[in-house]
Formats: sequence, C-alpha cells, structure tokens
Amino acid sequence: MHNDAKSTSHDAIAQIDSDGRLRHLLTLDGLPPNRITALLDRAEAFRSTSAGVSKLLAGRTVVNLFFEPSTRTRTSFDLAAQRLGALVINFDVASSSTSKGETLLDTVHTLEAMHCDAFVVRHKESGTPATISRHLHSHAAVLNAGDGNHAHPTQGLLDALTLRRHRPDFSTLRVVICGDIRHSRVARSDVHALHALGAGEIRLCASAELLPDADEFPRCRIFHNFDEAIAGADVAIMLRLQKERMQAAAIPSESDYFTRYGLSAARLQRARTDCLVMHPGPINRGVEIAADVADGPQSLILEQVTNGVFVRMAVLAELLAADSTTPLRA
Amino acid sequence: MHNDAKSTSHDAIAQIDSDGRLRHLLTLDGLPPNRITALLDRAEAFRSTSAGVSKLLAGRTVVNLFFEPSTRTRTSFDLAAQRLGALVINFDVASSSTSKGETLLDTVHTLEAMHCDAFVVRHKESGTPATISRHLHSHAAVLNAGDGNHAHPTQGLLDALTLRRHRPDFSTLRVVICGDIRHSRVARSDVHALHALGAGEIRLCASAELLPDADEFPRCRIFHNFDEAIAGADVAIMLRLQKERMQAAAIPSESDYFTRYGLSAARLQRARTDCLVMHPGPINRGVEIAADVADGPQSLILEQVTNGVFVRMAVLAELLAADSTTPLRA
Amino acid sequence: MHNDAKSTSHDAIAQIDSDGRLRHLLTLDGLPPNRITALLDRAEAFRSTSAGVSKLLAGRTVVNLFFEPSTRTRTSFDLAAQRLGALVINFDVASSSTSKGETLLDTVHTLEAMHCDAFVVRHKESGTPATISRHLHSHAAVLNAGDGNHAHPTQGLLDALTLRRHRPDFSTLRVVICGDIRHSRVARSDVHALHALGAGEIRLCASAELLPDADEFPRCRIFHNFDEAIAGADVAIMLRLQKERMQAAAIPSESDYFTRYGLSAARLQRARTDCLVMHPGPINRGVEIAADVADGPQSLILEQVTNGVFVRMAVLAELLAADSTTPLRA
Repeated sequence: MHNDAKSTSHDAIAQIDSDGRLRHLLTLDGLPPNRITALLDRAEAFRSTSAGVSKLLAGRTVVNLFFEPSTRTRTSFDLAAQRLGALVINFDVASSSTSKGETLLDTVHTLEAMHCDAFVVRHKESGTPATISRHLHSHAAVLNAGDGNHAHPTQGLLDALTLRRHRPDFSTLRVVICGDIRHSRVARSDVHALHALGAGEIRLCASAELLPDADEFPRCRIFHNFDEAIAGADVAIMLRLQKERMQAAAIPSESDYFTRYGLSAARLQRARTDCLVMHPGPINRGVEIAADVADGPQSLILEQVTNGVFVRMAVLAELLAADSTTPLRA
Repeated sequence: MHNDAKSTSHDAIAQIDSDGRLRHLLTLDGLPPNRITALLDRAEAFRSTSAGVSKLLAGRTVVNLFFEPSTRTRTSFDLAAQRLGALVINFDVASSSTSKGETLLDTVHTLEAMHCDAFVVRHKESGTPATISRHLHSHAAVLNAGDGNHAHPTQGLLDALTLRRHRPDFSTLRVVICGDIRHSRVARSDVHALHALGAGEIRLCASAELLPDADEFPRCRIFHNFDEAIAGADVAIMLRLQKERMQAAAIPSESDYFTRYGLSAARLQRARTDCLVMHPGPINRGVEIAADVADGPQSLILEQVTNGVFVRMAVLAELLAADSTTPLRA
Repeated sequence: MHNDAKSTSHDAIAQIDSDGRLRHLLTLDGLPPNRITALLDRAEAFRSTSAGVSKLLAGRTVVNLFFEPSTRTRTSFDLAAQRLGALVINFDVASSSTSKGETLLDTVHTLEAMHCDAFVVRHKESGTPATISRHLHSHAAVLNAGDGNHAHPTQGLLDALTLRRHRPDFSTLRVVICGDIRHSRVARSDVHALHALGAGEIRLCASAELLPDADEFPRCRIFHNFDEAIAGADVAIMLRLQKERMQAAAIPSESDYFTRYGLSAARLQRARTDCLVMHPGPINRGVEIAADVADGPQSLILEQVTNGVFVRMAVLAELLAADSTTPLRA
C-alpha cells in the first residue's frame, strides 16, 4: 500500500506529457480538477449525442489487455472503443505468448509493433499499467482498467459523473464509502475524484482489518460502525466483498457481513431521505447490499454502468483523438 | 416438458407487443403463419441481394449470450448481425461476472445499461430467454438461440426456408423427423413451423424412451420403427444423437443406434426417390446419418447452414430495424 | 519430414489455379521468385500508405481457424484483415463443434456455407491447410498460418521483407539460421524464401539431433558449432527453442543451450560488424538469445512484427481482392 501511495505522485506526473496533454490515464490521484471536469464534460457530450456512435477513432486500434477476468469492464471499454469507430483487439492473455514465457513487456512491444494505439490494462499487481507506460516504444496510450489495490480511474470518473448528474454541487455532500477499503482500487479512485471535485465530507467505513493505513487518507473520516457512518449521508458507495477477505476480517459468514456492513433498507433510513446508493458491480445481493435497496428508487447502480461507457469514450477520445492527425505508424 | 408446453402459449403472446409488432423471438409455437412467411420472405430477400451486407443495423449492438457452447450457431448469429452493420459483443459467460456470483438478470440489466439492443440467448434451461424478456428494463429484443428442450426458433425457420426453396407446396409433404424427439428443441420448432405452413403429414420416429409425451404432438403420427416411418416420405429430418442419451434409450452403442435409427442409403431408398435429407448439425457421421447420405445429392445440410445466416439477418432486421429511428439510449 | 518434403511440390502446384492466379498460400516451396517479389512489393505499398486502412475487402469474411494457440500470429492476421475492411471470425476451436466430434472438414464446409471467403489455418499436423484446400466446396482461399514442421509461409515472407528493407541485394548475403531446424516450419519457409530471392549462402546450425535429414536442404551449409556458423555472417536468424525438445537434443538445461546455441553479444561479434539479428518470436530471453542482443541496435525483431501485418494484408489482398467482383455467395 505504501508503495502504491508513493507511486501515485510519480504516476500523476507521468501521465501528462511535456506539452501538458493527457497521455495516459493511470490514476486520478494528483490529476487536476479541471482535467477531471473536462473528461466528465466530454462524457456528458457523448451521452447527449443522439446517435451515440462516431468515426472519431476510425483507423485506430485499441487492445484490451486483461490479466484478470472482467467481462463487465472489458465489455464497457470494447463498446466505447467500437462506438468511436476504433478497431478492438481483445488480447486473451490466458492463451497468449505470455503463457509461453514471453515477458509482459515483450507482449506489449509486439502489439505496439503491430501499430496498436492504446492499451487498456487490468492486472492484479499494482503499478503494472504505469510500468507499461514507462517502457513504451511508441506514442501509444495506456488506460488503467484496474491494477491491484492501486487505482481504477475510469471507475472513479464514472462514479463522479453519475453523482454530478444528480448532485451538481459536491461541496455540501457527505459521502460514505463502506466495505473493504483497504484492498479497493475503486475506493481509492473514488476518493481522489471526490476530493478533486470538492466533496464536503468523505467517510470511510470498514472493520479495522479492512481499513487503509491511518495516514493514507488524512482528509477522510474513519468509521468502524456503519450505522454511525451512514447517519445523515447524502451518498452511500458500497464496495463489493471479495469473499476471500472474510477470514482476514474475522467475518464468519456472508450474513454476518451483511449484518455489520451491508446496506439494508432499514440502515438506509439512517441516511438522508434522498440518499443515493452506488456500487461498482457486480453486486452480491444480500451480502454488501440488500436486493430491494439495489433495485430501489435511490439506487444509481445501472446508471453507473451506462455512464461507464460514456466516460471510457471520453477518455479514449481525449487520449487518442488529439493525436488523430498522426499517421498510423507514427 | 409439461412446463415447456404450458409456457409456449404465454411465450407466443409475450413476443408480440401491444402494437402487434414482433418484439422478441422466443418460440415458433403460436406464431401466426403470415408472420413466419414474412420472415422467410425477408430472409429470401437478403439471400438474393448480391452484396449480402448492409448498414441496416449500423449503430446497434447485439450481444451473444451463450450459456452453452455452440460455436456454429453463435458464429451464424455473429455473421448475420455484423453483415447488417451491427456491433457484436460475444459475452463469454464462462469467464464473466456470472461466475463471480452475479445473477443472470443482473448481467442482462448491466448489458442493457450499456445500451445493447438485442440479446441472442442460448441456455440449457428451458424458458431462460422468456424469463429474460419478461424482466428487461429497455426496449431490447431477445432472440432464443436454443433453450433446453423447449425451442430453437431460428432453426425452425431456417429449416422451413430450406424446404420451401425445394418444395414450395407444403400441403402434400410427408415429413419424418427421427431421433431423440423427446429432448429436442429442434424437433419442436420444426414441428411448429411445419404445422404453421400447412405440412401434409408429420411423422415422429424414436424409441419409446425418446418420444415426447403422448399428448404433446396430437397432430403428428408416432413411429418406433424407422423403416416404417420413412416409407414414402418426402423429407427426412435427422436429429443429432446426444450420446449421453444412449443409456436412457437402452441403446448399447453408436452402431446399434445407427442400425435402428440411422439414415443409411439403403433405408433412404424406402422414402420417395427425391426425398430430401436434413440435419441441424453438427452431424455424427455413421451414428444418426451415413456419411454418403450426408454428402449425397439429396442432402440439404449445407444449404441449411447457408439459410441460417439469412434467416438470422431477417429476424434481427425485423426485431431491430423497425425500431431504428429510436435513439441509442431509448 | 519426408512426407512434408514430398508434399511441397504438390502444394506448390495446388496453390496456383488454372489461370495462374495465386489461390491459396500453403508454402513458399516452389513459389516462383516473381510471385514472392510481387507479394513483398504489395506489402511495401501497404506500409507506405499513410492511412494504413482500406475498404479493399469490405463485405468479405475471414475466419481464423487456429488449432494451436497463437495469440501473436492470430492477432497479426486479425489486424491485417480488419484493416482491409474484412469481417473477421475468430473460430474458437477448443469450444467448437470439433470438440463435439464434428470432423475438421465438416467444420470447414459449414463455415464455407456461411460464405466465409478465407481460412487462416494453424494446425499441429503438417499438411492440414493443404488437405482443407483440396476439399473446399467454394472459392474460398486457405492461408497456412503454420502447420506442424512443414511451413509458415507468411513468416518466410515477412522475414524476407524485413531483410530486403535493410539489404536489398541478397546475392552476397551469408545468412545463418540457428536452433531446432529439424522441427521448425519457420526455418523451412525462410530457406525457401531466401533461396527464391537468391541469397548468397544459407547456413543451418544445430546439434545433430535437431538438424534436418541430410538430403532436405542440399543447397545449405550445415554446422554443428555456432561459433563457426556465425563467423562472417550478414544475418543471424535465431529460432525459438521448444523446451520439450531439449531432452531429445541431449541438452540438460536452458543455460547449457544458451552456451552452445544462444546468441550472446560476444558471439555476435564473430559475425560481420553490421550483422542483422532476427527471431520469429516469442523470444526466450537468455535461452536462444541474450536480452541485450534482442534489444540491441542490430535487432530487427520488432520490425519483423510490424512487417508481419503488412505481409498478411498483401497476401489477403492478393488472394481475395482479385476476386472482389464475385458476389458474396459465389
């Protein structure tokens, strides 16, 4: 975790090139608020286009390089790229040369040599997208689609966009994030986006074992008790329980987890009446969130999915289209 | 099986919307003959178009949601959708969130939230496509690509189209369907299409264990002896033997199955001289059909495959193109 | 191996149709030099086109039929076909009907019946692409993407193109190919291309167990000692070590292989100062090639990858575009 924290300031610099252009999207940590706002505005513009498809990235190639399975996020990036007219290669890592002993960087350099313009990377190790970005031979862009516990910047952006559509003024918002904060790249990217956009108060709630180190989020309020954390909240962001973490957190069962940290309808009533409910999905019904809350009128879960495609279109357009006058083999 | 039979009348109603438009294709059971004819005519029109590709579904997204492996049918739908200009997502269920505990309906709702316009669904449980169609949040269409023993409507349509090209008048036809009728969604959809189009006589042939319940097909003639069933037939539709059924059917071996229910050249001579031979594929050569019959001049097996793509183009066009003025996020 | 050698002359004839047109690409063995040169020129033309994408194959369908895993080569063909505007089907053999007992040829005929225009075939058995080409029902083209020990013609072409860009005159070149020549389709296709284009001298270097039969390459010089083989060479083509061959070759370890047959910086100094280094990838760093040599200024490894896409575009264009006036269902 400390390595992650230290690496972010480097990432924040590395993803901006010497002309001040966004060259990669590795993290939201340190990304200036006006850049985040510009990406959200661009996503909003795609959302309001009736056609929803364009040829902006015609002739460009986007590679989905997923070292962890994630059909949901991969499909969202796939649709975003194809709806912009890009050609998409879903590089199946399990059956690829990396399983023949080729190194990750050799795989990336090989794909660059085939003139791929963007790498959408998911990896269980924090820092892999940044490592790739530092070793590129070409002008390709790297989009972090989730690395270890470190960052999931497009998730942070889509959560910010979803929330902004319902609560344009972040300054008075009290946002509670509940679940396995310690191991959650979603929580980190959400916190970075919310801070950047001026959220009034961010509360992090988990058992002691699942909270981050004390100094990682100095501006957040820490809670162990969800009933207290959610009191008066405007937004509740529930994290997915990785079931293999239950033992470490001294949680004997899913129902016990739900009792302590799940969002039930009763518990939601402790928040403000119009408290919004978010979750990055896929949801475990009855574990971190009650089914009736997930499907209820305060839930934005499916809106998050919708906005995810538009946010990824915006990021791809920002990273690739500014470069669109460059010939294919630049 | 009884559940299937009961569910079909509901499906027949459910797939037509209140404006009388075909909204889903769940089953051919109860679909009016003029609708079936219109779909076949539309497939024929695609077939006669020299280019074979169009932009009719440009900007639309079709998801292949296959919970059973079927490269053949999935590829046919994939080609049909892409040749109409649609964007196709092959949603790999094995590695998807459904394997992380997400429910089927949550997966569907997530894909709907990404603005997918059609779901092509194959599932081992009868009724899954209908269940999905009842729980949609959007105007998406559901195409049943085979569910349990229940229905495989595009197979029924492609078989009807293939036969119609060779025998335009169904009223005098004697059609024999031989194999594991009891567990065959192909047989059911073929019977529904053939009845709707006025087939003169439908004969079902299988061992007692592999025949449907006595009351399921009151208008068909039932045979246990294939030599008798094929006598004088105009068309023989052979079903694929699911090898795991052999034991239940008291069939000790593949060669024993072939002796009793396989279509040999000698047995084919008991039918009319110009008897046509059909099979949904993939074929087990020497099990349900002799290799020389499968490859012989009376075989329409590969024509069925060709017509399959055109039928699926017709169904996709019917379900989606009428809706083509709707913006992406309707 | 003898069967392979005998089959090549037949393949060389089979891939040219009665009008003298290249109909399939099965092998470079016996392909006239002017045809090889024409393919390289066409690849060069694609390379120099700034856009890099075209609609030349719009409306055509290319099937990747890979019976061995190879993400690298499959991706290269996928990109090549899509950048020419073709629709690409990646037919997943592992989960396909071939795993349900359907024969290979039934799979091919089924895909032909769906109007696929080209089959890109990789198979562990030598001769499979040729077998497919002999049994086609349509005018589809077969592109050998590597069959057993027999041939990998697009690799031969891309190696020739890469070398020609740096050394236009082949007549004075001394080329050494080092590694498991005996089992290498890359080595065979490289030798065929280099001979056709008039290479001055080809040296084959391996331990006795990994050399081909004495009479297979009568025009090549055979070496067992890599230090001797590389002396004064203009080009060193290193082959990937298939680790399962080590035992047969009496090689106890990877480091022992590197010591005897690996290309180290020290060994490279025995060659000409400007000796070029090539490898078909994926590379085993520290086994057949030192990391600093692979990444060094004499290495053309990534250029080979780049040229691979252009060569495959050229071959697809040559095989399919001449036929482009044919309607889809020809």
